[in-house]
Amino acid sequence: MDKNKKLTIVDIATKAGVSTATVSRFLNGQLNQMSEKTAVKLQKIIEETSYTRNVAAVQLAKQKSNLVAVIASNIDEYFSSEYFKGIVSILSAQGFIGVLFDSNSNTTTESALMASVYNQKFAGMVLQPVSTDPHLIEKFTNDAVPVVLIDRDIGNGQSITVTTNNFQVTKYAMEHFLNQGFNKVTIITEPINRISTRVERIAGVRSVFDHSQLIEVDSDHLNFSELSDELDINNPKNLLFVLKERLLIQLLANTKLLNEPKIPQRITGFIDTSMPKYLAPNYKFIQQSPFLMGATAAEVLLAQISAKQPEHIKQIVIPSKFE
Amino acid sequence: MDKNKKLTIVDIATKAGVSTATVSRFLNGQLNQMSEKTAVKLQKIIEETSYTRNVAAVQLAKQKSNLVAVIASNIDEYFSSEYFKGIVSILSAQGFIGVLFDSNSNTTTESALMASVYNQKFAGMVLQPVSTDPHLIEKFTNDAVPVVLIDRDIGNGQSITVTTNNFQVTKYAMEHFLNQGFNKVTIITEPINRISTRVERIAGVRSVFDHSQLIEVDSDHLNFSELSDELDINNPKNLLFVLKERLLIQLLANTKLLNEPKIPQRITGFIDTSMPKYLAPNYKFIQQSPFLMGATAAEVLLAQISAKQPEHIKQIVIPSKFE
Repeated sequence: MDKNKKLTIVDIATKAGVSTATVSRFLNGQLNQMSEKTAVKLQKIIEETSYTRNVAAVQLAKQKSNLVAVIASNIDEYFSSEYFKGIVSILSAQGFIGVLFDSNSNTTTESALMASVYNQKFAGMVLQPVSTDPHLIEKFTNDAVPVVLIDRDIGNGQSITVTTNNFQVTKYAMEHFLNQGFNKVTIITEPINRISTRVERIAGVRSVFDHSQLIEVDSDHLNFSELSDELDINNPKNLLFVLKERLLIQLLANTKLLNEPKIPQRITGFIDTSMPKYLAPNYKFIQQSPFLMGATAAEVLLAQISAKQPEHIKQIVIPSKFE
Repeated sequence: MDKNKKLTIVDIATKAGVSTATVSRFLNGQLNQMSEKTAVKLQKIIEETSYTRNVAAVQLAKQKSNLVAVIASNIDEYFSSEYFKGIVSILSAQGFIGVLFDSNSNTTTESALMASVYNQKFAGMVLQPVSTDPHLIEKFTNDAVPVVLIDRDIGNGQSITVTTNNFQVTKYAMEHFLNQGFNKVTIITEPINRISTRVERIAGVRSVFDHSQLIEVDSDHLNFSELSDELDINNPKNLLFVLKERLLIQLLANTKLLNEPKIPQRITGFIDTSMPKYLAPNYKFIQQSPFLMGATAAEVLLAQISAKQPEHIKQIVIPSKFE
C-alpha cells in the first residue's frame, strides 16, 4: 500500500464497509457507539494508512492557531448543527478545534464576523455564505487563508465549495410526482435573495413542471391559515413543495391530510431531521447529508492548510436522497 | 436619574413595556422588526441611561480579546441555539463576539475545549457543563477569567449560574395533572448522570406523586415500539412526562392519542420550540426561555469583565412557563 496517498474519511468508510459517521465516532474515541469488531477493523485500516493526526502538529510547530472558524447562516437550523458536528469530527481527529459563529441571515453581521476571523488569525474558515457577492472572500484568498464554502455557492468559480445536488435531486423528485399525476407545484420558501440552494431547487421544479407558483414566507412570522387559499391544498393535482423543514412540519401538522391514510402524498420538501418521517412515515422527502458535507468540507480545508489540496478541485457534491 | 446605575436588558424592557427580545433586536439594529414608535421609545430610554456600548472598548484598550467562548453540552438541541442567540444579542451590542463550541455531551471533549479557551485568552466563557465536578472551573476562577454557568448547576456555590426553576415549574405542572385525576407518572429522560436539570425535574415529580417510574433512554437509538409495554400508555391514570423535546415529539407522533380529541392530555414535557404545540395545540407543556437565559448570562458575564458584578449574586433563575 502506498503510504503517501492521503485517504479521506470516505475511503476509510468504504474499505471498512461502515458509514462515515462511524469512522468519525471512531476517530473521536466514541467506541461505545460501535461493535468491537468494527473498532478493531477501523484501527487496522487506519494503522495501515497515513490517516493520522499530524496536521495540527505541523501547524503548532509553525506557531499558528489550531482554531478553525465555522460561520453558519443561521444556527437555528438543525442543518448547521449537523454539518458543524461533521466538521468537528474531522478537525478534532487532527488536533484542530472548530468554533461556530452565527451570521443570523444578516450580511452585515456576516462581514463583521469575517473581519474578526481574519484579524484573529484562525487557521482557516468554513463559510455558509449569506451574501452572494462573488468577491466575498477575496481578502482571505489573496492572503492565502484557507476557506471552504459549504451548502451555498457564490459563483466566483474560485472557492472550493461543498454542496448537495440541489437541482438534480429536485428534478428527480419532481419526475416521481409528475408520474403520480400532479400537474402543478406550489413552492413554499423563505425569501430567495439569490441564494444558490433556493434558486437551484426552484429551477429543478421548473425543469419538470410547466405550472408552478412561488410563495415566499418569513418563517418567523408565519400563519398558515392566512395562506390557505394561496396554498390550493384541496386541489389533488397540486403538489406542495416546501424548501425548509420547519415550514414543512408546520404544514404537515396543520393539514388534515395525514389523518386520512387513503389520500396520496400531496406535500413534500427538503428535510434535515427524522421528524417529518415520524409524522408521515410513508411519505417521500429529500434528505441531505449535512454531517458528511461538514466532514468533507473539513477534509478539504485541512488539505489546504497542509498545502496538499490539488488546485483544480473547485466543487464537491454530496448527493441528497429522495426516499 | 442616576447615570451610574447600570441597567439590564430586563430593566430597559420593563421601562419600555416591550419584550427583552425586542430590546435585543433594537440593540442589534434590527429596526425593521419593530414599530417606529417602539424604536423611538427604546432610543430615548437608552440615551437617558448608561446602557451604552463601552465594555469592549475598555477591553480592547487593555489589549484583551473581544471573543467570548460559549461551550454548549450538545448543539443539536434547539435550546442551545436559542441561548447562544440570546448571548450574542447582548455581546454584540457591547462590541463582543460570541463563538460556540460543542462538547457533544462528553466530559473529555469538554475539558479539552475548556483548556483551549483558557489558553487562547478569551475575554470570558459561558459554560453549559457536562461534568458535575464542583472543581470544574477552578482554574478559571483562580485566574480571574470571568465564567458564567448556564442551564446546569455544578453545586460549588461559587460560580454564577443562570438556570430555570426546574423543580418548581415541574411541581406546579404535576399538581395540575394530579388534580386531573392522574395517580402515576412515567418519566422518560436521557441518562441522568447527576445532571442538575434532570435531578431537579425528577424531584419535582416525586414531590407531588407517590408513584412514579423512570425510563432512561439514549435518544440516538430510540425505538418506541420496544418500549411500549413499559410506557403503560393505555392506562388513563398514567401521565407520560418527557424531559427532552425530541423524545416528546416522537411520542406525540407515534401514539394514536392525538387522533382522538376526546381523550384528555396524557403526555407532557419540557419543550424548546413550537413544534409540540403544532402537533397538540390544546396540550399544556413546560416552556423555558433560553433566549432570555442567554441574554442574562451575557449581561452577568459583561458585568464581571468590567468588574461591576456584585459578588454576592450567585444564581439567577429565569422562570419557565407551564401553559
